[in-house]
Amino acid sequence: MTVKLAIDCMGGDHGAKVTVPAALDFLRRDPDCSVILVGRQEELLPLLGQAKQKFGARLAIQHASEQVAMDEPIATALRSKKDSSMRVATELVKSGEAQAALSAGNTGALMAISRFVLKTLPGIDRPAIASVVPTLHGHTYVLDLGANVDCQPEHLLQFGIMGSMLISALEHKERPNVGLLNIGEEAIKGNEVVKRAGELLRESGLNYYGNVEGDDIYKGTVDLVVCDGFVGNVTLKTSEGLATMMSAALREEFNRNLLTRMAALIALPVLNAFKRRFDPRHYNGATLLGLKGVVVKSHGSADVLAFFCALEQAAKAARNKLPERIAARMALLPTPA
Amino acid sequence: MTVKLAIDCMGGDHGAKVTVPAALDFLRRDPDCSVILVGRQEELLPLLGQAKQKFGARLAIQHASEQVAMDEPIATALRSKKDSSMRVATELVKSGEAQAALSAGNTGALMAISRFVLKTLPGIDRPAIASVVPTLHGHTYVLDLGANVDCQPEHLLQFGIMGSMLISALEHKERPNVGLLNIGEEAIKGNEVVKRAGELLRESGLNYYGNVEGDDIYKGTVDLVVCDGFVGNVTLKTSEGLATMMSAALREEFNRNLLTRMAALIALPVLNAFKRRFDPRHYNGATLLGLKGVVVKSHGSADVLAFFCALEQAAKAARNKLPERIAARMALLPTPA
Repeated sequence: MTVKLAIDCMGGDHGAKVTVPAALDFLRRDPDCSVILVGRQEELLPLLGQAKQKFGARLAIQHASEQVAMDEPIATALRSKKDSSMRVATELVKSGEAQAALSAGNTGALMAISRFVLKTLPGIDRPAIASVVPTLHGHTYVLDLGANVDCQPEHLLQFGIMGSMLISALEHKERPNVGLLNIGEEAIKGNEVVKRAGELLRESGLNYYGNVEGDDIYKGTVDLVVCDGFVGNVTLKTSEGLATMMSAALREEFNRNLLTRMAALIALPVLNAFKRRFDPRHYNGATLLGLKGVVVKSHGSADVLAFFCALEQAAKAARNKLPERIAARMALLPTPA
Repeated sequence: MTVKLAIDCMGGDHGAKVTVPAALDFLRRDPDCSVILVGRQEELLPLLGQAKQKFGARLAIQHASEQVAMDEPIATALRSKKDSSMRVATELVKSGEAQAALSAGNTGALMAISRFVLKTLPGIDRPAIASVVPTLHGHTYVLDLGANVDCQPEHLLQFGIMGSMLISALEHKERPNVGLLNIGEEAIKGNEVVKRAGELLRESGLNYYGNVEGDDIYKGTVDLVVCDGFVGNVTLKTSEGLATMMSAALREEFNRNLLTRMAALIALPVLNAFKRRFDPRHYNGATLLGLKGVVVKSHGSADVLAFFCALEQAAKAARNKLPERIAARMALLPTPA
């Protein structure tokens, strides 16, 4: 199925230097897609080379005169920058000219602008952000990752529904199993919000597994782990910190003296295979869920490969009609008394 | 300073087979300490060998006829097992016969029994559990780890005070710096409870650093990270899961074929040094804080070395008068209006 992506080319730490080459790679690899590069025309054009001739109508530029800075207050981004590349990209989804928007810019601003421009689906109180983490022989989806810090049980139920539909769209797994992140397996564990959320999930008709604990995320016990945005954000950042620390320590041990450095040389292919296996670039792309349109957030520091992976994900979510899936599943919920 | 420890010898996955040898090691290494082994006399006596002659009055046995099971409901442990080894050990602290109690048993039961027998210090609403995690070149204390899942801002302030006093007692660092676990550095970030807790910590006179994020735990940005028990428990379990997964993946890569297995042989001393560096046995021992007495919880699966490390920690906390430090610091807080 053909799909058209609107790409905020100015966002992220590296801007057009990364987003444009990634978009061109994507056009080369996926002959059924087209892209609209959104940003300052005078910056984008010189990066295109022969691409315009090569891809013809599959490659378009939409000029946008402004840019949301990485540290820009959300209110400013939303109210005073109406011609930002981020905003124009989401408006292209709103108008139906594109089926998905992608940005490596400021997360808070992207969420606020997407919500303002696209609106949430019926029954969804708050959009959420989902990401995927590697397990030993697979991966696990986790949401929410920071969009919602004060959650009610109903929000966690909505996260479960939105995450399940994301997995069905991206992985063709029709009934992914859903775990609720908690501090023990028993249903009586946890704080009041989580206990009630467990009841709602149990009655939801989702493939609900029950409570899972922190270590289940990397064990791959379930396809989807649901938690509030505070816990999700802390959990993922802690994981980043631990992985960085362990890698640094391993490097230190291999650098200790001449003998260990020789061992490092011999072990290098193995260490590189290990590194490739968990290469975070392949996991780039956090989907904003619950909007009337597909929006994917790339990591701000993404390189060309990482941004390319996020583009692939956005195309897949659009092709498999993620918002429609969520809307249809939400409509099955009993109306609150 | 001489110190006497009351050891619940029956708790944990391995019971007396681990706790008794660890206690004897401890008597050998620390000539200023004595221990009371609490448990079924008929099980403990055969494990002592010549120890009674060797250590004389430094080694005593206190018979306790019952044992709290690892999966025993807290209410049963508290109400129906009044002669459990866990309870008798805490009662020895209450009566002043011992200066610290140690158990590898059921965490919830240990917390409930300790609270019931010893009571909390003035101004402390709820005891907390603190643990320590390794960083690249040091370590960070984290609390709470699961005792308190629904926290008010005042509880997080109390955790900051109790944790600071723990570090001053164990590390002789008089003004450890304290970070509040949050989802961003700015004071406006986070949920309502955390925002208010930040204000209380800022006014507390503690060495308050401000907000820290998940990755700061393993960066060692601060000496103490304060969070509610839900977040703390999830964070630590997620870390365990990730470390286990990374180790398993590294093992898989080194086991892939003949060539990689040869590389593993050569890299073995380096890999072992890496493993030793983060050996969790050296970090065993989570301190229960806020009680009128020192109680330390060992990991249930602790071996002799791990249990020994927890004994060392309990002795240090008792010698440096941890409860008295917390009580004195709490008395400095302004009385609520």
